[in-house]
Amino acid sequence: MASSLSPAPVPMELHVINREKLLKSMRQQLTETSRPLHGFVLLQGGEEQNRYCTDHTELFRQESYFAYLFGVIQPGFYGAIDIATGKSILFAPRLPADYAVWLGEIKPLSYFQEKYKVSMACYTDEIVEVLLEQYKGSGKPLLFLLHGLNTDSNNFSKPAKFEGMEKFETELSTLHPILTECRVLKSDLELALIQFANDISSEAHIEVMRKIRVGMKEYQLESMFLHHTYMYGGCRHSSYTCICATGENSAVLHYGHAAAPNDRTFKDGDMALLDMGAEYNFYASDITCSFPVNGKFTSDQSLIYNAVLEAHNTVIKAMKPGVNWVDMHKLAERVLLESLKKGSVLAGNVDDMMVERFGAVFMPHGLGHLLGIDTHDPGGYPKVFLGTERPKEPGLKSLRTSRDLQQGMVITVEPGCYFIDALLVPAMENAHTSKFFNHKVIGRFKDFGGVRIESDVLVTANGCKNMTNVPRETSEIEAVMAGAPWPLNKK
Amino acid sequence: MASSLSPAPVPMELHVINREKLLKSMRQQLTETSRPLHGFVLLQGGEEQNRYCTDHTELFRQESYFAYLFGVIQPGFYGAIDIATGKSILFAPRLPADYAVWLGEIKPLSYFQEKYKVSMACYTDEIVEVLLEQYKGSGKPLLFLLHGLNTDSNNFSKPAKFEGMEKFETELSTLHPILTECRVLKSDLELALIQFANDISSEAHIEVMRKIRVGMKEYQLESMFLHHTYMYGGCRHSSYTCICATGENSAVLHYGHAAAPNDRTFKDGDMALLDMGAEYNFYASDITCSFPVNGKFTSDQSLIYNAVLEAHNTVIKAMKPGVNWVDMHKLAERVLLESLKKGSVLAGNVDDMMVERFGAVFMPHGLGHLLGIDTHDPGGYPKVFLGTERPKEPGLKSLRTSRDLQQGMVITVEPGCYFIDALLVPAMENAHTSKFFNHKVIGRFKDFGGVRIESDVLVTANGCKNMTNVPRETSEIEAVMAGAPWPLNKK
Repeated sequence: MASSLSPAPVPMELHVINREKLLKSMRQQLTETSRPLHGFVLLQGGEEQNRYCTDHTELFRQESYFAYLFGVIQPGFYGAIDIATGKSILFAPRLPADYAVWLGEIKPLSYFQEKYKVSMACYTDEIVEVLLEQYKGSGKPLLFLLHGLNTDSNNFSKPAKFEGMEKFETELSTLHPILTECRVLKSDLELALIQFANDISSEAHIEVMRKIRVGMKEYQLESMFLHHTYMYGGCRHSSYTCICATGENSAVLHYGHAAAPNDRTFKDGDMALLDMGAEYNFYASDITCSFPVNGKFTSDQSLIYNAVLEAHNTVIKAMKPGVNWVDMHKLAERVLLESLKKGSVLAGNVDDMMVERFGAVFMPHGLGHLLGIDTHDPGGYPKVFLGTERPKEPGLKSLRTSRDLQQGMVITVEPGCYFIDALLVPAMENAHTSKFFNHKVIGRFKDFGGVRIESDVLVTANGCKNMTNVPRETSEIEAVMAGAPWPLNKK
Repeated sequence: MASSLSPAPVPMELHVINREKLLKSMRQQLTETSRPLHGFVLLQGGEEQNRYCTDHTELFRQESYFAYLFGVIQPGFYGAIDIATGKSILFAPRLPADYAVWLGEIKPLSYFQEKYKVSMACYTDEIVEVLLEQYKGSGKPLLFLLHGLNTDSNNFSKPAKFEGMEKFETELSTLHPILTECRVLKSDLELALIQFANDISSEAHIEVMRKIRVGMKEYQLESMFLHHTYMYGGCRHSSYTCICATGENSAVLHYGHAAAPNDRTFKDGDMALLDMGAEYNFYASDITCSFPVNGKFTSDQSLIYNAVLEAHNTVIKAMKPGVNWVDMHKLAERVLLESLKKGSVLAGNVDDMMVERFGAVFMPHGLGHLLGIDTHDPGGYPKVFLGTERPKEPGLKSLRTSRDLQQGMVITVEPGCYFIDALLVPAMENAHTSKFFNHKVIGRFKDFGGVRIESDVLVTANGCKNMTNVPRETSEIEAVMAGAPWPLNKK
């Protein structure tokens, strides 16, 4: 069998629960701030986009906040939740008659009401009328619109817009932090989808490990991964553009984009760093495997790989509610630096290295990020609730969250060790950090590239659970690449 | 062997020739209208797009006019051509130092100059300075900017913008029609890429025919196609979202989009209509194959399929320079209607049917469209040069061009026959067209769906050449689906 999996069920109950959670939080917040329990949460879904001036339509993917609350796969919708009654209302675009000829059956409103389990379904040209009719308070109804900063992109979400908005009061500050916070802690139904995205992506990584051959092109690994997750997992979208970096490219953290398009032919002796994850019904996975393309680790490759693996494993052992993520980042750095010292790549005192933020030379990115409907799920720096601030020091400033862990968070654990000229050269020339290098040894790693090991980890009541299931020990990787089944000890 | 192909060479000379062609046309036009041979063509390339407010980056694909002239795969560029000297200048974004850590090596300007074979490469923040310096005329230099209607989308291309534009005169009306017309007739180097896109896509269609099994999901066919064209052809983009329609879905002309996402499980007895094409180095292919999912045509399936095939073949036999595309559309309709009459689906006089535009009930879309860097390549209705107008009658109004064929055009030939309730029911109730139906027979086709056969055809000096190479006869399709090699008679 090419796969042991088939697409997981997608219960729309998931989005009902998401809406109930938001409603509860909104009511609580309004009560705490002595505001009336009136008005509507109103979100605008995404629209299909054309490529530049052409009629080439990009494959539509729903805006993530809208997906979270309503699960709607079609473009052009609005969705409302009545704070007073809890009623949920979807507004569907009224399609022209010739839609039936070109794009498919025009579904009745009842179809959307049933499919998405909302209280009512109406047309988008009825928003004003329906909301005014549903409103039981006095004066203009209040609309809570989505407006707030995404702390990964530094972009702001766009509040809903429609004709006739002047008939409503609008409020931009309440909804975004509350809805974002709802997304941070995952429900069991959400976890099941993230787990499936992990299962099919883990299997696809193993498939790639088995089929990789010296002389292939990097994009062929991407193609195999995308095919496996779509063919057997029904994953039409990947969570992000595949990073299929081999040789020196594995030191480019976000390799694989259009200007660095996974087009190298790899050679015997290269390491591969494959960061690839499928999205399943909006929910992401994000997995990195690193291994030698020829299936056998050299001693230098083992040294670096095991240093990263120990950081990865040590962090996962330490993770539980209450643990701070900045501390986890520093833990990963410390383990990594100690291993590099033990392996004679570095010299000197690791505490001193930590003071100099020397770990950031080898791991300039953050240890990991919240994962959900977005690969970099929002909520990392919630201004309103927790007052967490983005650190400013090297390495730490790249962290996408500085929060304490809570049960129900899914966060990636992705330590790495890279030999990046743009960072190594200044550090070797710097009077404070030059002494930490074993200058006789470090030259050997000039073209090494890098290693990253990334798993998706759920914080549980007492610890955590790794949702990713791929070979991690060098012996496991070598066995699977040589054709052994995974898990190994099936007897 | 999984494929007999490997990615074709991509000579940057192609874009040099495209620029020379534009320069020649611009100079000719300026001379004819008694304007000075001064100023610059200036285009702005595309920018990377984020998904909504997040930091999720969509895989960048260059804007098509910019791709035509410069072949640049990176975002954020500008490009200029000096009308007086013919010099070509690329302006690259000045990247921040940490680009090297996250996104890859920062290439020197000489890299872009050599790779893209331009006269000069500078930074985008030097546009004003460089263009003023290069300009040898008097007064403010004139910039010819791209502004014009895309007649498929009804959107306008956006003229280049940059800081300091007030130092130039700008002109919006000259460039767009001329550059669009350059794109209509393909050079040999362009044809080689369109041919490769056709070769790998043809092979992928055959791969899908061989692997299709009753009980699969439509998207699995999409996955196989995308994988084959990327894995063996290096095609990272497909020309358009795959249409993998089976059963009644094959009557939905643009099935496969996000709201109709190729998710049906198909059944024994279904027809499949697969409209899928890979893009290779910007250049498109666009191919449709229709066949029974179980590998054996029923007599009704043969009847409809052969009616469409005869239309397809008759048009290709008739195509040559000077032939009008509206006439080809009508020829396809006539052949189709005659076959349906011969097969007892229709009754009455085909001339009368043509007068009533009855063919549009079965083939509501146009016969085909120009193909190039866009799947629906521009230039179908060039206002300035030819005064061709979009027809208003059913069927004909969907044509993306009404031009006479010229040597060097690549145009799709894609007749179809669909049983679409939204069109059939009104036509059966209409006093003028009801009589054309054999009402005893037509009911049999209610859930038939549709058949489309689409090839990419190059107009040559004396006729045309079909660039698509897939089994078309029912016997060929059945043989290939049963495992025969393609082409069949390899002995």
